[in-house]
Amino acid sequence: MTAFDKGVFCFFDEFIKQPMDENSLLKQYKSIRKRSLSICDPLEIEDYVLQPIIDVSPPKWHLGHTTWFFETFILIPHFFNYQPFDSHYNYVFNSYYETIGARVIRTNRGNLSRPTVSDVKSYRAYVDEAMDVFLREQPLESEIETVFILGLNHEQQHQELLLTDIKYILGNNPLFPPYERESTYERQLSSSPDEDKNLDVHILEGVYEIGYVGDDFCFDNELGRHKVYVEDCTISGTLVTNKEYLEFMVAGAYGTFEYWHADGWDWVKTNNIHAPMYWYKIDSEWHRYSFEGLKPIHLDEPVSHISYYEATAFATWKGTRLPTEAEWEIASKQFNWGKLWEWTESAYLPYPRFQKAPGAIGEYNGKFMVNQMVLRGSSIATSPGHSRATYRNFFQPSLRWQFTGIRIIK
Amino acid sequence: MTAFDKGVFCFFDEFIKQPMDENSLLKQYKSIRKRSLSICDPLEIEDYVLQPIIDVSPPKWHLGHTTWFFETFILIPHFFNYQPFDSHYNYVFNSYYETIGARVIRTNRGNLSRPTVSDVKSYRAYVDEAMDVFLREQPLESEIETVFILGLNHEQQHQELLLTDIKYILGNNPLFPPYERESTYERQLSSSPDEDKNLDVHILEGVYEIGYVGDDFCFDNELGRHKVYVEDCTISGTLVTNKEYLEFMVAGAYGTFEYWHADGWDWVKTNNIHAPMYWYKIDSEWHRYSFEGLKPIHLDEPVSHISYYEATAFATWKGTRLPTEAEWEIASKQFNWGKLWEWTESAYLPYPRFQKAPGAIGEYNGKFMVNQMVLRGSSIATSPGHSRATYRNFFQPSLRWQFTGIRIIK
Amino acid sequence: MTAFDKGVFCFFDEFIKQPMDENSLLKQYKSIRKRSLSICDPLEIEDYVLQPIIDVSPPKWHLGHTTWFFETFILIPHFFNYQPFDSHYNYVFNSYYETIGARVIRTNRGNLSRPTVSDVKSYRAYVDEAMDVFLREQPLESEIETVFILGLNHEQQHQELLLTDIKYILGNNPLFPPYERESTYERQLSSSPDEDKNLDVHILEGVYEIGYVGDDFCFDNELGRHKVYVEDCTISGTLVTNKEYLEFMVAGAYGTFEYWHADGWDWVKTNNIHAPMYWYKIDSEWHRYSFEGLKPIHLDEPVSHISYYEATAFATWKGTRLPTEAEWEIASKQFNWGKLWEWTESAYLPYPRFQKAPGAIGEYNGKFMVNQMVLRGSSIATSPGHSRATYRNFFQPSLRWQFTGIRIIK
Amino acid sequence: MTAFDKGVFCFFDEFIKQPMDENSLLKQYKSIRKRSLSICDPLEIEDYVLQPIIDVSPPKWHLGHTTWFFETFILIPHFFNYQPFDSHYNYVFNSYYETIGARVIRTNRGNLSRPTVSDVKSYRAYVDEAMDVFLREQPLESEIETVFILGLNHEQQHQELLLTDIKYILGNNPLFPPYERESTYERQLSSSPDEDKNLDVHILEGVYEIGYVGDDFCFDNELGRHKVYVEDCTISGTLVTNKEYLEFMVAGAYGTFEYWHADGWDWVKTNNIHAPMYWYKIDSEWHRYSFEGLKPIHLDEPVSHISYYEATAFATWKGTRLPTEAEWEIASKQFNWGKLWEWTESAYLPYPRFQKAPGAIGEYNGKFMVNQMVLRGSSIATSPGHSRATYRNFFQPSLRWQFTGIRIIK
Repeated sequence: MTAFDKGVFCFFDEFIKQPMDENSLLKQYKSIRKRSLSICDPLEIEDYVLQPIIDVSPPKWHLGHTTWFFETFILIPHFFNYQPFDSHYNYVFNSYYETIGARVIRTNRGNLSRPTVSDVKSYRAYVDEAMDVFLREQPLESEIETVFILGLNHEQQHQELLLTDIKYILGNNPLFPPYERESTYERQLSSSPDEDKNLDVHILEGVYEIGYVGDDFCFDNELGRHKVYVEDCTISGTLVTNKEYLEFMVAGAYGTFEYWHADGWDWVKTNNIHAPMYWYKIDSEWHRYSFEGLKPIHLDEPVSHISYYEATAFATWKGTRLPTEAEWEIASKQFNWGKLWEWTESAYLPYPRFQKAPGAIGEYNGKFMVNQMVLRGSSIATSPGHSRATYRNFFQPSLRWQFTGIRIIK
Repeated sequence: MTAFDKGVFCFFDEFIKQPMDENSLLKQYKSIRKRSLSICDPLEIEDYVLQPIIDVSPPKWHLGHTTWFFETFILIPHFFNYQPFDSHYNYVFNSYYETIGARVIRTNRGNLSRPTVSDVKSYRAYVDEAMDVFLREQPLESEIETVFILGLNHEQQHQELLLTDIKYILGNNPLFPPYERESTYERQLSSSPDEDKNLDVHILEGVYEIGYVGDDFCFDNELGRHKVYVEDCTISGTLVTNKEYLEFMVAGAYGTFEYWHADGWDWVKTNNIHAPMYWYKIDSEWHRYSFEGLKPIHLDEPVSHISYYEATAFATWKGTRLPTEAEWEIASKQFNWGKLWEWTESAYLPYPRFQKAPGAIGEYNGKFMVNQMVLRGSSIATSPGHSRATYRNFFQPSLRWQFTGIRIIK
Repeated sequence: MTAFDKGVFCFFDEFIKQPMDENSLLKQYKSIRKRSLSICDPLEIEDYVLQPIIDVSPPKWHLGHTTWFFETFILIPHFFNYQPFDSHYNYVFNSYYETIGARVIRTNRGNLSRPTVSDVKSYRAYVDEAMDVFLREQPLESEIETVFILGLNHEQQHQELLLTDIKYILGNNPLFPPYERESTYERQLSSSPDEDKNLDVHILEGVYEIGYVGDDFCFDNELGRHKVYVEDCTISGTLVTNKEYLEFMVAGAYGTFEYWHADGWDWVKTNNIHAPMYWYKIDSEWHRYSFEGLKPIHLDEPVSHISYYEATAFATWKGTRLPTEAEWEIASKQFNWGKLWEWTESAYLPYPRFQKAPGAIGEYNGKFMVNQMVLRGSSIATSPGHSRATYRNFFQPSLRWQFTGIRIIK
Repeated sequence: MTAFDKGVFCFFDEFIKQPMDENSLLKQYKSIRKRSLSICDPLEIEDYVLQPIIDVSPPKWHLGHTTWFFETFILIPHFFNYQPFDSHYNYVFNSYYETIGARVIRTNRGNLSRPTVSDVKSYRAYVDEAMDVFLREQPLESEIETVFILGLNHEQQHQELLLTDIKYILGNNPLFPPYERESTYERQLSSSPDEDKNLDVHILEGVYEIGYVGDDFCFDNELGRHKVYVEDCTISGTLVTNKEYLEFMVAGAYGTFEYWHADGWDWVKTNNIHAPMYWYKIDSEWHRYSFEGLKPIHLDEPVSHISYYEATAFATWKGTRLPTEAEWEIASKQFNWGKLWEWTESAYLPYPRFQKAPGAIGEYNGKFMVNQMVLRGSSIATSPGHSRATYRNFFQPSLRWQFTGIRIIK
């Protein structure tokens, strides 16, 4: 997740493991494609267009870009006689700086009112229709199926981004419009999880194995299952709550440099940070912007929209640290996870035997493996069926518009 | 014109001279208000939302801001029992950074998907209805009428900005969508003007008077009619054409620092400028983006979308200079003008006896009288009835998204 | 003054009027050259090297650059068999970005520890010796003499810059080292001027002439003596004092946007300005850094190191304005001037008939005639014999490290 | 190494293990302190003052800052009746932004001509004399000795920085002055190492221990000796040479994004990188700036002044990767190291059981453990006796003014 639109290229570092029958493929395709549109149902047309910060893409771009994937990597090379919907769309939805004739235009996703939302939806319908024919007519060669499955996972990743980007667009509008009146996402966030799995988890020193094993889909950065040596430690069974985080704030969190990395302290000062993202103090009470609009902080909910810098500052204040990704993965069966992505103390680096896939699909593997930290788990915004204990999400340590939270070592 | 949205405040530095009967006022109001909407007719909803550069405001902001003017300065203070449409709109359409409760939100016009275009149109209708009642029921006090007339002129200024901002939004989209298939604006630009008035104009040395005199509306920066001493000179009867400007380009315009001001040369190098705005070389032929889309350069048309730096570089290459605003105003009766705003060699400074009006209306008078150059005339995008020979337009010397051109001293 | 080192090129836009005998030229040369070194006498070697902000050049650069002028424009072209001191110095003291072999090095004046101060002094001695021989041996051709006189005036301009740049380097050091224990410059600033000329000066409406007339040296931007029409006005006979400026500060100067140009207000906010340059509040008393170190503000002294934005904000607060350069020049015989450069309300623009001199000397004339304001008079730091009532100094409106002050219209 | 002056604070995260007798301490102190001055012997006074980029400190700052360490942490708290040399020096050599009375001055190391080099040398002599008395008179308490030993190691780290910063200052001067005519550093770089240890080293899969063990000094980031699980691999016995790196360049290194991390590619494009630091092509032959001035590239020398981005791009081109810090440490006994710091594929993160030391000394431990990569080994510029196989150096991936090189996995 996450790397697709950072900078310029779409990133897809994945392999498929297990063939599916075509019927099932088509069903899955339709279901996933439909969900992307459903996520956008509550939007006004105006909401589809904006890119308020570089990390947030316009919803219509997500809708176009995921479609471009299937057109570019499946239909154009493999579907005989396929006519591209519009030859300019490669430029628009691929985000390269391109030379058209002698014109060189540098633009960005947030400056484009055209193609319109309606155009993009037509584009989706056109490609979906072609895919329908394509998927019915021919049993997929293994290589094509790999790319196809990748396209589905790619779209699911963009579904999470759609939700976080929409939240950013609405939550930074002074009118604070809700995304929906009653949000299942919000209900999930405040739900009581499996009580049995709220206990702290102890790991015994020794050699463990981490990394993906199995026959289903995973990304290539999860492959290379390998042994790690881990020391004794105890991982908290629960996420840090708003109550605990407020105690940290009262204790001087954002004004005490001892808690922070040097870069984190710079980030706090430069951006004048004094609370988690989406928190607003109204009439001396803390509120947060939620999918249902502004509402008072609920003390028992896990604190969310936290940067790595804030997560480590909190842990330092507590006299402890974040888990490494190995510790997290080893212990994960024994605690509840899935509400928020959890920052780890591991930098995003290649696993042993990490290899680029040959050809275009593998071309950009690993290009993000510097200056980012690993997050584990998944969030309320993660697409159904798109999470597993070996999943390695990653972001720059200052970012917090994703649904991120904190779990600490006790 | 022009200053409204630079930075933060709306600027209105004007007085009315002559009362009108209410019937006429209402008619004018309706006609001007309607024209703002008509200008936006060809737009898609997506086009209303963007702010691709700081100088360009989203069309829906223009529609809201001009409405806010009448609500804030006429209806709220003077219309008994008037209920504002939405209390947040002052914040949204005034562009101040404001504190709402304990929330301090810094945002900008181009990051706001809400209020929607439909909301803004409802806002317009609501205010227009109230204004209709207000204008029918009461004969306006002189002071209110002054502000009202100002509001009309303010809206006309924004109509020109609407056109230039729309052109920017569409003309920087890689699909280059036309604004309209057949554009009267384009026809005006290439029209043949009054032949008798194409001759160079000679001014004799002596004392002349410049500045507004009369009983109609003018802005306060035109007041203070005063004597100036002018030396002999000859002003070109015509604007510089694309043909002449291309000769300049062929002669090395953008690569020869001798022609440029030091700041202009910096501007050229920093922004990699090598042609007027909206010019694109396609298959080795120069095209420009017009309201009708991309089309080949017409050699006889006046060159447009030119910065002051380019205008003076051209004049230097020709061994001459631009006229001062006094020379321009004195000679203006004898040549055709009105296609393009014409850069002068005069900095934007107060006329003698320039005075701030008392109260809010006059609060920001003169605040732009530094670092800008005067443009004279008007353009194809200027609203009907909104131009006069004493009008003082002004912009920073690097800007060129307005319809600007070059007239030189012979 | 002032423009030399802005950006890249040295600017010299001047003509000589009157021949002098060679003996006198040599004497003048020696005297002026010696003064540049004397100004640097109080410095430590470390002080010669720094460029703390872009506008301030290292003292050793000034010493080298003024020497480079005579070497490049007199000795190399006109002194038979002259051997340049060091072929790299053209690059170092001319500030071009140059290609040496295949190496392209971009650097700036403040990053160069070599050539050392001692090298630069050797360079000066070498060129002075050659100039001594050159000036003795040959009666100068008129054209060479023009350039020679220009070189002397150029060096005098750099002497003022040396003083203001040294003040900046020392006055921004936390140790606040004095330049000298007892400074004649400071004595001049607090001296009582000719009492008879402290009265306000009234100008009668009518046509006046401004611009240089006579047979001595002047810069070409003063030429083109021409008629201007001026209205009645009264110019203050004295400069604004620290006392008056403190009243302005107490009245909320830096916190009240109504007094400021929009650009000025931006400057105040962006740079967190709350007092004139070099003012420091110590134990609740205002001090200023002077050539003698930190000392308490003297209320009767003219306020100094003021930007154009501050000068106009002060005038606005007083309900008045600054004089234009024409008004200043017309009235100047009747008041005392010479302590501080005085901001005028005139933008720096060409006089009528302004013409570039042919060839290299005139190449860059007028390139600074945009975005700057005219200052008139001279300052305590101006070289003896280098001031006249027609002198047109100019700077960007935000700059204030020169000795600048305020005179207002009453 | 390395972190001291990044940002604001000096970092010292270290403990002493083994007491020494006082005589030996004094001898060591004198020897180390003397070496710092010797390193500066070849400098002109002007060379001591500059800070051409943020990462490079002025040599006189290094001399003052290392002295400030002993004054602040030894003499002031522990030497009865000690009088600080100058009360302002804490501000100048500590680099905090401090409020002195009501003055708040923001400055930086490279803008300070005072204190002069001579002042700083007096400061050193004054503190050294006090330390001499202090060390003779009293047997050190264990805690003080810890800090004292830390001060010695701190000064040794700054000795390496002195060398790299001096190289930057001279090597970016267009005159390219040599640091010394015959440099032992250069001789070391091109020396032939122990031939037996040039063979590739194979590591067998299994559990290993890394981290410091022993009774001598080490930094706290090396502590926490712990087990790691490592897979089979072969590490090159030699560093990548200029010859190999030139092959990479010829193969299109800096123009082929496939080889680069996304952030690395940005760095290449933004900074227009096309060769290692200090490389200049003169008359179509590659040269590098060395301590002896410019000289042609020697093909057999290890390529130096390489960023992490370049190191990984090279490895990617070769179809391999860099070693992790664990692999490096495990294999290090079997190959030659010590010419150049070697980038590893490990991010700089805390070892297990990493703990802040209590009090001021430990206050900033770990604050740099984000966004940086580990380098192992040492370089020709490392102080004698200041290297060990467990040493963890770290820098941002774009930096290359240190003596850095490349070792790859075969």
